[in-house]
Amino acid sequence: MTLKAYLQDKITIINDALDKYLEYKKPHPEVIYESMRYSVFAGGKRLRPVFMLATCEAFGGDSQVAIPAACAVEMIHTYSLIHDDLPAMDNDDYRRGKLTNHKKFNEATAILAGDALLTKAFGTICLTDVNKVHPNVIHQMLCEISTAAGAEGMVGGQVADMEAEGKQIELQDLEYIHAHKTGALLSVAIRCGAILANASLEQQKYIGIFADQLGLAFQIQDDILDIVGNQEVIGKKVGSDIDNNKATYPRLIGLEQSKAKVQELTEQALQALELANCKDSTYLRAIANYLISRES
Amino acid sequence: MTLKAYLQDKITIINDALDKYLEYKKPHPEVIYESMRYSVFAGGKRLRPVFMLATCEAFGGDSQVAIPAACAVEMIHTYSLIHDDLPAMDNDDYRRGKLTNHKKFNEATAILAGDALLTKAFGTICLTDVNKVHPNVIHQMLCEISTAAGAEGMVGGQVADMEAEGKQIELQDLEYIHAHKTGALLSVAIRCGAILANASLEQQKYIGIFADQLGLAFQIQDDILDIVGNQEVIGKKVGSDIDNNKATYPRLIGLEQSKAKVQELTEQALQALELANCKDSTYLRAIANYLISRES
Repeated sequence: MTLKAYLQDKITIINDALDKYLEYKKPHPEVIYESMRYSVFAGGKRLRPVFMLATCEAFGGDSQVAIPAACAVEMIHTYSLIHDDLPAMDNDDYRRGKLTNHKKFNEATAILAGDALLTKAFGTICLTDVNKVHPNVIHQMLCEISTAAGAEGMVGGQVADMEAEGKQIELQDLEYIHAHKTGALLSVAIRCGAILANASLEQQKYIGIFADQLGLAFQIQDDILDIVGNQEVIGKKVGSDIDNNKATYPRLIGLEQSKAKVQELTEQALQALELANCKDSTYLRAIANYLISRES
Repeated sequence: MTLKAYLQDKITIINDALDKYLEYKKPHPEVIYESMRYSVFAGGKRLRPVFMLATCEAFGGDSQVAIPAACAVEMIHTYSLIHDDLPAMDNDDYRRGKLTNHKKFNEATAILAGDALLTKAFGTICLTDVNKVHPNVIHQMLCEISTAAGAEGMVGGQVADMEAEGKQIELQDLEYIHAHKTGALLSVAIRCGAILANASLEQQKYIGIFADQLGLAFQIQDDILDIVGNQEVIGKKVGSDIDNNKATYPRLIGLEQSKAKVQELTEQALQALELANCKDSTYLRAIANYLISRES
């Protein structure tokens, strides 16, 4: 199967499952479901859930069992975007060329839709098939996803990002922001894929390094695209991070050095992937390479 | 032990555990922990966690095992207050006589502190002692707490509450709001206490009815206190629900009828408690009676 067909297959599986998990239920207020679904189906790349399924398969697992956890991670990712876009945070009117949740609905609904998605995420992990996955594995995923998403992970990264705004920060602070704000959730998605395939602790360790290096590379690439990207392609105002006076890799170490860093991190990630000793890492490697050569 | 001593004992246990679970961890941004802790330790009555521990003991269980889940429910309750107080929602500057989170910190931090508490809640449930509690029980709690807190529960109630603002609504809409916005979380706390004590399905059913009736009685009592209460005692502006044009029981059916409804619901709750056939329901009954005679 070509990479494109493989990705499309996984994306369809994820979208169908998300559609099912987020089905409107009477007699609850319909607007909250509309708002949750609006952002979940606003054109996300499904990077995290696809990575989880692909990692599970790479270790010889049945990716069917990973669907609930994969959708949960996508719900958490979506809630974080809804809240990040709020006026009190990044104050963005558009994302991926569509109105942000609070512009489409209103601020209160956007806050609550984010809250509901985050809550639903944990309920969705619980839908993992207990006949095929040991309860201890589900338990481990819940712990790790909670840590990756909370104050020690994604939320911590977002706070650090806000604190850095308009300030002169060091490279290590920027690495903290990237590793936590976006890296933590991508990393836990990949690790959960391995856990669900019953990968050994050694394998989990190396796939974790793969995930962390790739996550940082991905984020630096995002910083680069914000500068050199094309507004129509990435769907937000090019240079908006600079307008906001946001710390980015290109600002701190320059564009060329940033590109070199992406290359270096990707190579390290692929070395770790080698050491993780997958049954078949073809697609994981292809996705990784695709990510750093992407234009949006 | 007197009820007062019993409550104080449980509150101390909960506070100590919350203090431990919410301990600041380097190198994460300190302000997010400060903000989470500010609201968690802002003088809450610990009603939900105390109820969980008391219910567990009423069914002959060891309430020690309920501490993580009890703290989780309190974290969820606290996050919901932080978000409800935001300018885009109820826009409250004070709660329990103290500045609300976004007034003490700022809006962005308040949103993120709420998000982090909600996330931490699910991670905390996972800390339940697997040597003493069967994984299936932890799994059941996670499902039920997620449902009670999300779009089908607390968040759904908050959305319905917002939609009702300034509108003429029916009693059944108000019941939906109360049952979901505040009732769902209290109810799940009580049911989790029973589940952790290995109560039978029949017992879980009756304690569920007890919880639902008592929850509604509690909320109507809140509506009543908002009218007749004393500002210093309840720590927020008396009549603020009326100022906001909020639907309340006294507005819909009058003050005296509301008081009669509280009485009726409490009696129904206590009958259900009888049928739940606890090992010792002394404290549960005492807490229920205390709740509806409270002045704040």
